Amino acid sequence: MNLSDQRNLSMLVDFYELTMGNGFLGNGCGKKIAYFDMFYRKAPDNAAYAIAAGLEQVIQYLNQLSFSEKDIAYLKSKNLFCEEFLQYLRNFHFSCDVWAVPEGTPVFPGEPILTVRGEAMQAQLIETMILLSINHQSLIATKANRIVTAAQGRPVMEFGSRRAQGYDGAVLGARASYIGGVAGTACAIADRDFQIPALGTMAHSWIQLFDSELEAFRAYAKIYPDDCTFLVDTYSVLHSGIPNAITVFKELESQGHKGKGIRIDSGDMAYLSKKARKLLDDAGLPYIQIVASNSLDEYIIRDLIMQGAKIDSFGVGERLVTSKSEPVFGGVYKLSAVENNGKIIPKIKISENIVKITNPSFKTLWRLFDNESGKALADVLTLYNECIDDSQPYEIFDPVHTHKRKILTNFTAKKLQVPIFQNGVCVYTSPTLPEIQAYCKEQLETLWEEVKRFENPQTYFVDLSPELWQLKQNMLNQQFT
Amino acid sequence: MNLSDQRNLSMLVDFYELTMGNGFLGNGCGKKIAYFDMFYRKAPDNAAYAIAAGLEQVIQYLNQLSFSEKDIAYLKSKNLFCEEFLQYLRNFHFSCDVWAVPEGTPVFPGEPILTVRGEAMQAQLIETMILLSINHQSLIATKANRIVTAAQGRPVMEFGSRRAQGYDGAVLGARASYIGGVAGTACAIADRDFQIPALGTMAHSWIQLFDSELEAFRAYAKIYPDDCTFLVDTYSVLHSGIPNAITVFKELESQGHKGKGIRIDSGDMAYLSKKARKLLDDAGLPYIQIVASNSLDEYIIRDLIMQGAKIDSFGVGERLVTSKSEPVFGGVYKLSAVENNGKIIPKIKISENIVKITNPSFKTLWRLFDNESGKALADVLTLYNECIDDSQPYEIFDPVHTHKRKILTNFTAKKLQVPIFQNGVCVYTSPTLPEIQAYCKEQLETLWEEVKRFENPQTYFVDLSPELWQLKQNMLNQQFT
Repeated sequence: MNLSDQRNLSMLVDFYELTMGNGFLGNGCGKKIAYFDMFYRKAPDNAAYAIAAGLEQVIQYLNQLSFSEKDIAYLKSKNLFCEEFLQYLRNFHFSCDVWAVPEGTPVFPGEPILTVRGEAMQAQLIETMILLSINHQSLIATKANRIVTAAQGRPVMEFGSRRAQGYDGAVLGARASYIGGVAGTACAIADRDFQIPALGTMAHSWIQLFDSELEAFRAYAKIYPDDCTFLVDTYSVLHSGIPNAITVFKELESQGHKGKGIRIDSGDMAYLSKKARKLLDDAGLPYIQIVASNSLDEYIIRDLIMQGAKIDSFGVGERLVTSKSEPVFGGVYKLSAVENNGKIIPKIKISENIVKITNPSFKTLWRLFDNESGKALADVLTLYNECIDDSQPYEIFDPVHTHKRKILTNFTAKKLQVPIFQNGVCVYTSPTLPEIQAYCKEQLETLWEEVKRFENPQTYFVDLSPELWQLKQNMLNQQFT
Repeated sequence: MNLSDQRNLSMLVDFYELTMGNGFLGNGCGKKIAYFDMFYRKAPDNAAYAIAAGLEQVIQYLNQLSFSEKDIAYLKSKNLFCEEFLQYLRNFHFSCDVWAVPEGTPVFPGEPILTVRGEAMQAQLIETMILLSINHQSLIATKANRIVTAAQGRPVMEFGSRRAQGYDGAVLGARASYIGGVAGTACAIADRDFQIPALGTMAHSWIQLFDSELEAFRAYAKIYPDDCTFLVDTYSVLHSGIPNAITVFKELESQGHKGKGIRIDSGDMAYLSKKARKLLDDAGLPYIQIVASNSLDEYIIRDLIMQGAKIDSFGVGERLVTSKSEPVFGGVYKLSAVENNGKIIPKIKISENIVKITNPSFKTLWRLFDNESGKALADVLTLYNECIDDSQPYEIFDPVHTHKRKILTNFTAKKLQVPIFQNGVCVYTSPTLPEIQAYCKEQLETLWEEVKRFENPQTYFVDLSPELWQLKQNMLNQQFT
């Protein structure tokens, strides 16, 4: 969804959200106030954290949440829904409160990325789209950030539209990639609608359509004398592509123009890029950049750089736009509390699988920053009515191994979630995409390098306040007695 | 895209398609007639074949291909495109010929799923959307079919919307899953727009919102007395969920209603389903069905059935809707020929990687069926003007190991591609989705079981006619001398 996308996705909902809504109404508990947290349990690729993204699309969805007569007619045809429920949908008026961490925030397992408070019928209904939006874009933003990190300052371009999982996979995939730090995209519509710089020059078919590679390069240079990046692997990178590219770059020089680069799309990038760099330098073309673009991801880019590959920028396709190594972001949306006469009654989801046990009640998520280094020290979940007073020392402790304790001093406590909707009215102004990208970069700088390692990263503390910890223990004990 | 989706995706295009289009025009070769084939090189999950899907969305895209003033203004702002090219886009009129295999057809590596003939500028421009549409849906239809095959006749439901890669990933993912054989979806909008039966009953939050599990089941039964599938794993499947479900099923019986099923969403499905079946049978409820739905795919379903799990139907989520084990379908779109004064000049793409060498020229794809068994014997690619006369014996041979030959008799030769557009006008009527599903099932029955094996399937013959084989050899020899 974007400004030019007028689809109404209100019916993109799991059918059970509707049967439950109708059921809540029939049981007189549709208007009961419920609290839901959206969070994930494990970051993709065994990372320590993920980058939150997709909030802007959630806001657009919630702002236009409504049901047409066509939707009502469809639901009516199912012979499952009472007239009162259909009337409720017909006159649907979103009225929940929503809090969320801003897009681009690094988030850790178990942390509420988004929290909803509102009538059970509504808060339940919006589950599917909240999960779908945030799961997808957080997945891609996280992957993009890993790839950008691996490239160590060299620009990364998102090139994956043709292999994306559907049209939104391509367009919003480009958006999420940009949040994660890519410099641009190949996808023109993502530039038109989200101002993500799009670029691209030629495919192999350009070369093939002409009678020779040299002719093809010359034809391109004629049209784009100041924007030539030649694809050099149609026949042979070293024996044909680069020599022909050099010929045309020299011709451009003699006409007062400057070529830009060569792109290598197959073969061994470490070997070919070093040879290519030498050929270009020997020809007096040190300014010609080398772009690599074949089946890349963070691991291959890391290895190429380690091997001394002479690559100036990377085009990354399918392994970014589908997060190929781990294509699912497993965010969930769980009930944490209900209200009874205005009093918050915490709810917990039990599981034999310990990581599936939820943190009960309405909560606040804090990040504590060291005042000296600026680094993030720990995150803490407290009950909603607790405050972390950062003018005083604060003791954090491991919620499983509770003997592991640490007293923090000289820190600043910051609430990570901000209000997004109040009584169904959006109170949040989304930053621009470049602002989100810059914010993400800045926030990542507050994380220790140890946490950012690709393999076996250091576990970051996500602790519970003593009050929340005690509440959870009491509820667990109660459940199992 | 569907009937209610009025997005114009003409600008969902890789930027280089536009720079190349502008470049073709500037070099006077924009109107040159070019031929492109869309094909893939390797089926996902090491399968022998894939299921083609996504054609209907390609047709919708091509039917509405046009550029708005907003698009033109965006392109103009790039200072790369000449006025003549922008004018060409402004007055864009699609005029290509398109052939394709119908959706639901099993297709093998290297086979043209879709072929385009037309002005180079146009035929190039549509690359991104053709690949994106067919890659995505073929990926999911293929995965769905594997899962449905593993379930051996037990219904499979697509449950993955919340974990899909974007909104189209969910909606068109449900569509493609249906082509591959699933019985229905959880996604309401896919039912509204594509008539894919949607269903769903309750989440864990339903149970948690009530004071007890028993109360939650009773509340549900009150509203849906004839449509109760209870989620039984919120607390303990065997000690709480099933006993409570039995209580309510019995209450329903005494009121003249019949419950439908239980759903198990965690724990060991083989163990729990057998225990559950026994508890239900002992309670005189043999008609209650058992639905399983946690992290399933074709491998787990196959193993569960092998272990005697008592599961009547499967709900499959993230591993289907993202094709988690292999989330990329690597279809490509390659130039195969150009016309020069009406004469077809074949083109070939060379690569040091042998599987990346293309089959040159404009071709016909045939499937040869045994008249006795009805089984597919081999596929053959011929030049466009060749005909396979099935009244005569026909010799096929392996294009690599050419001594391996076989003479076929008593067979029927069928062209797999059908005309989709002629001079830019759609001449194809898309079948309904149930028709496509039935066609897919029927076509799969023509493949030997050996070809359908999950691991190490038998390689199916995709041969070249002697004329095409000779042409390819000549072009390769010429290139390398």
